[in-house]
Amino acid sequence: MTLVLDGRETTEKVMEEVAAEVEALKAGGVTPGLALVLTGGDKNSARYVKLKKRRAEKVGIYAEFHHLEQTTDEELVALIQRLNEDPKIHGIMVQLPLAEGLGELKAVDAIAPEKDVDGLSPNTLGKILMGEETYPPAGVEAIMELFRRYGLSPENKHWVVVGSSNFLSKPLAAYLMNMKVRVTRAGERCPHVPELLKTADVVSTEIQRKHFVTADMVKPGVIVIDNGNTYEGKKVYGDVSPEALEKASAYTPVPGGTGPMLIALLLKATVKAASN
Amino acid sequence: MTLVLDGRETTEKVMEEVAAEVEALKAGGVTPGLALVLTGGDKNSARYVKLKKRRAEKVGIYAEFHHLEQTTDEELVALIQRLNEDPKIHGIMVQLPLAEGLGELKAVDAIAPEKDVDGLSPNTLGKILMGEETYPPAGVEAIMELFRRYGLSPENKHWVVVGSSNFLSKPLAAYLMNMKVRVTRAGERCPHVPELLKTADVVSTEIQRKHFVTADMVKPGVIVIDNGNTYEGKKVYGDVSPEALEKASAYTPVPGGTGPMLIALLLKATVKAASN
Repeated sequence: MTLVLDGRETTEKVMEEVAAEVEALKAGGVTPGLALVLTGGDKNSARYVKLKKRRAEKVGIYAEFHHLEQTTDEELVALIQRLNEDPKIHGIMVQLPLAEGLGELKAVDAIAPEKDVDGLSPNTLGKILMGEETYPPAGVEAIMELFRRYGLSPENKHWVVVGSSNFLSKPLAAYLMNMKVRVTRAGERCPHVPELLKTADVVSTEIQRKHFVTADMVKPGVIVIDNGNTYEGKKVYGDVSPEALEKASAYTPVPGGTGPMLIALLLKATVKAASN
Repeated sequence: MTLVLDGRETTEKVMEEVAAEVEALKAGGVTPGLALVLTGGDKNSARYVKLKKRRAEKVGIYAEFHHLEQTTDEELVALIQRLNEDPKIHGIMVQLPLAEGLGELKAVDAIAPEKDVDGLSPNTLGKILMGEETYPPAGVEAIMELFRRYGLSPENKHWVVVGSSNFLSKPLAAYLMNMKVRVTRAGERCPHVPELLKTADVVSTEIQRKHFVTADMVKPGVIVIDNGNTYEGKKVYGDVSPEALEKASAYTPVPGGTGPMLIALLLKATVKAASN
């Protein structure tokens, strides 16, 4: 029996819990506040950030949308610093990638660690590596949340993490270094990925190539976390082929796996920041 | 032919280069300054920090030794903040472990990123994970320096990193995630270490068990970086047995490998900070 790690169902449960926590915080006189910062004119990004705002409001979080269509590093950093000081705001999310020409490191480094609910700043990433309490990126939290909800242990396993982003694969590998696991990390273009995947008890892929992982690359009983999203028209495909998933003991489907959970876990982190 | 990666000889070369860079900086009107902070009454730590001061002065660096025998978190953080503001000081080194009862995270998080020449703060560790320019811990730099000096490429290899410290094994694994390598990291008590080591092209150990790694645990031609230091009386032993080293293509001896290089690379980072 293969276990499907259902991100949509889990999202609903997380959102219910978040709503209850918001209510409790409000009863205590605190309304969790989230600032959403978007740079540039990309329509899809704007739509996604607006969705985050609506979801936040739906669970009772106060949300501000700051859209800097034309901006400079100085203006962006000044906005972040203002939000750092604003007592209404407990969490700051800066949508990446930034508009062209803006310095990403400068921006994320300006976010106060105690408000970095999206786990973007070097301070947060360093704390993850050290095993200190912080707000890991939503993609990392989504994976840990699925393991918890479905009663799977992430420990005493060999994880193979394939991918290179600062918001998923690298912080995931850093996070795992503080658990009882072996973790192997390789880049998505590394020619040894097939043989590495074969050694894995848990696979996390961020390859962005439709059904790249074939059945011969995984061992029976593997747990698959597929973070791939390759679009063909309106259809989206993961990194792992259906034949490989048949060999798995548990897997996240694409669509409907980790993707839908990201907003819920950003909101959960915001509530945690407000209660601290 | 087995290549011995000689840390003492390399240290001498690094020190000569650092001395030349200090001279050039002084000619331009800048004297590199290093603050060394020690807490508590441990005699060995005091001796080691004094050695760092003497070595710094020998290459022309201005060095201050701040010894807080009895202190509090507040006093320690206040000292670090004063050093952050001091224009004479380009680098701050806080000797770890701190005296009992002091909060390590609070202290290292107070070091200004541009003066964190020992690579201790979460901000620095996060930048290492992101692949951004920063000052990695001396232990990581020592390994990279040896590869450079001996014309070895760290890339296109499978590294197996065994160890758990925030100043060596975890930042090394994070650093390697931004190179063309596969990296597997496991804790020093992980029961799978022997089988993992067998898959390695490069092994970095921080196990602290005399000659734990036997010949059957490594493959012929492996490169061994042995960061173990197990004392028996006045004699010191590494993690890797002589029989295993015989199978290696290159290795760091213990003593005389990475250990002696640590101070030189702290000084090199201080000079880099002064020139920035």
